[in-house]
Amino acid sequence: MSSIFSEIDRVFVIVCSKATTAPFNLNDMPGSAGRMDLVCRFIAQVIFVSHGVRKDSMAIAVLKGEPDPPKAILVKGNEVRYMAPDERNIGGLIRKALSVNFKSGEQIGWVRSTPGIYVARKNLKDVLSELEDGGYRIYYLKENGEDIRSVKFGKKLAFVLGDHLGLSEEDEKIVEAYADVTVSLSPISLQADQCVVIVHYELDRSASRVHF
Amino acid sequence: MSSIFSEIDRVFVIVCSKATTAPFNLNDMPGSAGRMDLVCRFIAQVIFVSHGVRKDSMAIAVLKGEPDPPKAILVKGNEVRYMAPDERNIGGLIRKALSVNFKSGEQIGWVRSTPGIYVARKNLKDVLSELEDGGYRIYYLKENGEDIRSVKFGKKLAFVLGDHLGLSEEDEKIVEAYADVTVSLSPISLQADQCVVIVHYELDRSASRVHF
Repeated sequence: MSSIFSEIDRVFVIVCSKATTAPFNLNDMPGSAGRMDLVCRFIAQVIFVSHGVRKDSMAIAVLKGEPDPPKAILVKGNEVRYMAPDERNIGGLIRKALSVNFKSGEQIGWVRSTPGIYVARKNLKDVLSELEDGGYRIYYLKENGEDIRSVKFGKKLAFVLGDHLGLSEEDEKIVEAYADVTVSLSPISLQADQCVVIVHYELDRSASRVHF
Repeated sequence: MSSIFSEIDRVFVIVCSKATTAPFNLNDMPGSAGRMDLVCRFIAQVIFVSHGVRKDSMAIAVLKGEPDPPKAILVKGNEVRYMAPDERNIGGLIRKALSVNFKSGEQIGWVRSTPGIYVARKNLKDVLSELEDGGYRIYYLKENGEDIRSVKFGKKLAFVLGDHLGLSEEDEKIVEAYADVTVSLSPISLQADQCVVIVHYELDRSASRVHF
């Protein structure tokens, strides 16, 4: 049986401090759903390019909001179907994943909700530990780290970033236990989805190694 | 009286081939509103950074869809209020702007709809002509142009790009009459909002001129 990480070279993990862990109102994603709009934009930017998806990329959102934390949502570029880049479409798919019923207690594996979309009873440490076991090198995206243009990247990369509130002190300690490099992108503090666009862009340029 | 372009250094113009020119259903922006979701994401990426707006930036969307084309929507970073980066919020503000009643005939100036948001009976040529008169240098963002990292940028920049369908042959001729350089960003074909993020990023980095 193939791993959930098969053929995935780029993973982006966002920690969502307030995002709800139960089905929510699609008309109020920034409010009662705890900034679920931000999660949708993050996923869109991990997965989509013009007229297509990045088959080598995966988004993981660790949701810490009430009423049933923690839950993690995973979206695989090489399996996803019926997803459009607009927030309402992605929100609908997340909502569906959040309606999956977990058996009480031991259930910690990824459960498939719709094609390419999985949900699990995992916290940040569970996710990072699984990525480490899967052979990923983990990078923490944050201000005041090493300039992305100075970092030499290999294959199998995982980037961890916070939402609009940033990581809690506790979560930051967890990330720092797994990430040996903190990477920075810009002199300006950016939104999570903007960070994803820029990481993809820098990796695409260095992968192509051509002047175009 | 100050110009609509006061204190604006970066302008992004998108040409939206199908986007509706009348008030629309916020629950169906990708469908019956003619990919208005894409327009919302474009505006968000022109204007927002983490916890703030780019006061030096302006988005202009030229809407060519039925039933009342052409209309142009303009959003100014240094005037906008009550805007959040989610699609539904921005869509609501666009919808309000599209409900402005134009007097028949001569009305071609910008009409303020809500703070920082204007609407006009303008087509692509009107917009580019106004930008040229305002002292902007116009760049066409498209595949197979000059690499953005080779281009020397001054102040007062305007970037023109197409939506998911690209520019029509006719519109491309208009842009080429105003833009002396075609600029490319990436070896991969990207969505309009992703192009905006990257242009901002490259300009921010070259403006800061520091290794951070």
